[in-house]
Amino acid sequence: MPELPPYWLRDNCPCAECRDPRNGQKLFQITDLPDDLAIAAQTEQGTQTEQNGQGGQGGQGGHLEVLWSDGHRSRYPLEWLAGAAPDGGAGGTVDGDGRTEADKRLWTAADFADGLPEAEWTAYLADPAERAAVLAAVRRSGFAVLRGVPAVERQVLAVAGTFGYVRVTNYGELFDVRVEPDPNNLAFTSAAITPHTDNPYRDPVPTLQLLHCLENSATGGDSGLVDGFKAAAVLREEAPEAFAVLTRTPVPFVFRDRDTELRADRPLIGVDPLGRIREVRFNNRSIGTLRGTARELDAFYDAYRRFAAITLRPELQLEFRLDRGDCLIFDNVRLMHARTAFEKDGHRHLQGCYADLDSLASTLAVLHRRAAALDAIAELFAGEGAGEYLGEAVTMAEHMLQAGALAEAAGAAPHLVAAALLHDVGHFQGALHGRDLMEGQDNRHSDTGADWLARWFGPEVTDPVRLHVAAKRYLCAVEPGYRARLSEASEYTLRVQGGPMSEEQAAAFAAHPGAEDAVAVRRWDEQAKEADADTPGFAHFRPLLAALMR
Amino acid sequence: MPELPPYWLRDNCPCAECRDPRNGQKLFQITDLPDDLAIAAQTEQGTQTEQNGQGGQGGQGGHLEVLWSDGHRSRYPLEWLAGAAPDGGAGGTVDGDGRTEADKRLWTAADFADGLPEAEWTAYLADPAERAAVLAAVRRSGFAVLRGVPAVERQVLAVAGTFGYVRVTNYGELFDVRVEPDPNNLAFTSAAITPHTDNPYRDPVPTLQLLHCLENSATGGDSGLVDGFKAAAVLREEAPEAFAVLTRTPVPFVFRDRDTELRADRPLIGVDPLGRIREVRFNNRSIGTLRGTARELDAFYDAYRRFAAITLRPELQLEFRLDRGDCLIFDNVRLMHARTAFEKDGHRHLQGCYADLDSLASTLAVLHRRAAALDAIAELFAGEGAGEYLGEAVTMAEHMLQAGALAEAAGAAPHLVAAALLHDVGHFQGALHGRDLMEGQDNRHSDTGADWLARWFGPEVTDPVRLHVAAKRYLCAVEPGYRARLSEASEYTLRVQGGPMSEEQAAAFAAHPGAEDAVAVRRWDEQAKEADADTPGFAHFRPLLAALMR
Repeated sequence: MPELPPYWLRDNCPCAECRDPRNGQKLFQITDLPDDLAIAAQTEQGTQTEQNGQGGQGGQGGHLEVLWSDGHRSRYPLEWLAGAAPDGGAGGTVDGDGRTEADKRLWTAADFADGLPEAEWTAYLADPAERAAVLAAVRRSGFAVLRGVPAVERQVLAVAGTFGYVRVTNYGELFDVRVEPDPNNLAFTSAAITPHTDNPYRDPVPTLQLLHCLENSATGGDSGLVDGFKAAAVLREEAPEAFAVLTRTPVPFVFRDRDTELRADRPLIGVDPLGRIREVRFNNRSIGTLRGTARELDAFYDAYRRFAAITLRPELQLEFRLDRGDCLIFDNVRLMHARTAFEKDGHRHLQGCYADLDSLASTLAVLHRRAAALDAIAELFAGEGAGEYLGEAVTMAEHMLQAGALAEAAGAAPHLVAAALLHDVGHFQGALHGRDLMEGQDNRHSDTGADWLARWFGPEVTDPVRLHVAAKRYLCAVEPGYRARLSEASEYTLRVQGGPMSEEQAAAFAAHPGAEDAVAVRRWDEQAKEADADTPGFAHFRPLLAALMR
Repeated sequence: MPELPPYWLRDNCPCAECRDPRNGQKLFQITDLPDDLAIAAQTEQGTQTEQNGQGGQGGQGGHLEVLWSDGHRSRYPLEWLAGAAPDGGAGGTVDGDGRTEADKRLWTAADFADGLPEAEWTAYLADPAERAAVLAAVRRSGFAVLRGVPAVERQVLAVAGTFGYVRVTNYGELFDVRVEPDPNNLAFTSAAITPHTDNPYRDPVPTLQLLHCLENSATGGDSGLVDGFKAAAVLREEAPEAFAVLTRTPVPFVFRDRDTELRADRPLIGVDPLGRIREVRFNNRSIGTLRGTARELDAFYDAYRRFAAITLRPELQLEFRLDRGDCLIFDNVRLMHARTAFEKDGHRHLQGCYADLDSLASTLAVLHRRAAALDAIAELFAGEGAGEYLGEAVTMAEHMLQAGALAEAAGAAPHLVAAALLHDVGHFQGALHGRDLMEGQDNRHSDTGADWLARWFGPEVTDPVRLHVAAKRYLCAVEPGYRARLSEASEYTLRVQGGPMSEEQAAAFAAHPGAEDAVAVRRWDEQAKEADADTPGFAHFRPLLAALMR
């Protein structure tokens, strides 16, 4: 283990005292650390002691134990260190925040010769995978098109609401793009508009724009997009000094009407501290009067004209038509949008709004996180769950699928179908396995399962799971004949789990607000042990689970 | 005249073909200009030909006429050139967009020993000057406090609405800052919070934050602010290399809860391309794992710890208490906010929201623009208007003030009071003066006045002004005895203005939707010629005019 920078290492201490386990927020201040912080002792521990392989940074690869000079103790997963540690591992190649050119797919029009990134609105709504694909396209390529979005007023706001928050500006919560009698902006005429980004005179600019077509029967009025990052990258390749001039010259962008007076001084090409393209502002109409020496102004205008000329190259211009019901979503800090002129007597009406790219990225990350969770659950059904009988005539996977199917057949609410489907996952998650239970040691699998599921599901799903063993002990106590219907294995585990409840325990259980749901799940649990039942596979339940995830 | 950079000069052509007079947006593309653009001929013209000294770039100092190699002609006010031209004039010292350290007042706590920038809510609402002072304080010093804001739920949204737009985030449209049972953020506990900026894991961050105190009876729970730009400037002075490290190191800020996964990689200190401090992100809790070489990580943590220590210096910490009804507005890209711990059993409840600094700046600019307009109108009343009788027993200023007072005494709507007050301003604005009218040449002062006023007032004010001469010609035609009541001067000008209307003209006038308002103004006009009337001064009408301005 090479020597690790002490403050860096300590700042990343994952212990619950240093970092809130719920949100990863640090619970100490950097100024709380002493001036001479040092590692007093460190030891590596192997994988043998690992019990819980599922926890995020838990990993399977052992830990580095650190005793600090101030007495604090930290424990770092070696797997985490391998990826994060300085001067080694994946340090230099990990993903950034997805916002610079390094994380984008830079494109020319030919890259979409086979079609645009697009989805049907109904599929987008129904299927998280479809939704993730659309959002990922916006994040990687800068745009996507939704087709068949209901062509009704204000619908564009609902589209934005599927991934983020609307950004209100002086143009309103939403704006109508159509010919207006006294337009305060070229957008509201029928004239052609060359590629540009919106609102460059704001800082920050709106990061996303949505344009929803309510009608387009005009001759002309086609849409165009240019990848501003690509255009900037082309400029950098062809004329590095011109690129540098555009990154280092703050340009005054201005907008003024009767109720508004906006100004932002920002470069046309914004780079991050490492020099990577991160933002493009390009709007010929709103560049105000630049100040500088004659030499600087000549250099800027030369660079600006080169850049503008690149954006007009046909190979960079992606052209397509928005028809009624189409909604274009695009990255306004990267892509430039354009439209051809149209006949004034043709009807063309778009409604647009601005929204935030970081919420889109958050929604996408959460969709990915949930998909990964569903994959993990599916794997459990396909793997361990498919091989383990735990004394029944069916595998645990079959048992849980039957319970879910019985709940569904009974018309139960989705959260109960999910609870029935997942009630026994705890057999495979805790320190003690279902097999331990069958050998007489209670594995408390209802708690273990509920805790594991709580990462993704709310109490409406986890409470019945947590209480399904108690519900058995309750029913055996209060319902004559119930105990007699238990399977042999269930009768055995009943005793390990504490036997039927006492009268007092039963009364307390019945008073629990979740008792009814738990009892319902328990009844399906008891029935779901038919050796030859015809049960749908896990994939059948995936959309239902996805919709319940939080 | 030194040689001017041709593309720069042409891009600033103010002609109506090149630039929309309403919003200053350019009507040509930079790529429309030929590759070999040059000045074919240029001549300076003196001030003598100037007719209209009021127009923005019009100025009083003559013009530069340019004939371009492509045949276009441009005309630049010399006054504008003097300020904007390269290598001279005020080029280097003009204001930026107000967002970098160059446009701020950097402060320490001692700078507010005499009190915070603050205003009463009612005064803030009623008086545009008070409103402008509060917004200017936020812009220059980064914060202001409104006192006596109604301590009711959601009121903070109304405060934001007085200058801008609410920015919705994963914390909602607004958020309650009080102790919560299961907090997803340290803010929602009773713990102390050291100086920090909010939402550093978003890009862009919310630029403004508002915190409205609904209750603060807790022991502790005081508020603190630190000028992050000042802290950064101190770091630059004391440890320039540490400052440089913080400007060039993108830091991964992260936030994750069940429904959110945000990340932004941005430096702690953001500088513009000229190296000026423009943005500070500082939140110990949400700094994720930084990657780099051991040397880079050591350098970063050294700089970060120095910066953090500076933010905790007592002289930088401004402390105060928010009481019920106080609303703090502050710049979240500059100021760090903090709070002391408080007793859990004391009640402390703030409601907060985020909003946009650029709209605040826009609102402030428009308030300044309107104040300047009111100053120009006041100057007209105090100057030319106070010296000119135009044949009446009272000066033009007295005449208009009387007309306004008569309208007010009659209980007229504010727009009619304004129209009565301002109806004769056209005598001093047009190519022809009121004196020309008195010498028999119609100066069309009703049109000139209405056009001048239309920059700031809507048609409800300008239409009666535009029609007040027509109303005289109308009344003289249709109302027996009206003409006999005209003053001598008015009888004279009636003839210059075309005499009483024909029957056809009168019918057309009566059918005009604005006829009634115009006639009302005309009657006050006729009465407002009392030599010894006791009339309020212009200042009396200023708030009424301010409220009508758009």
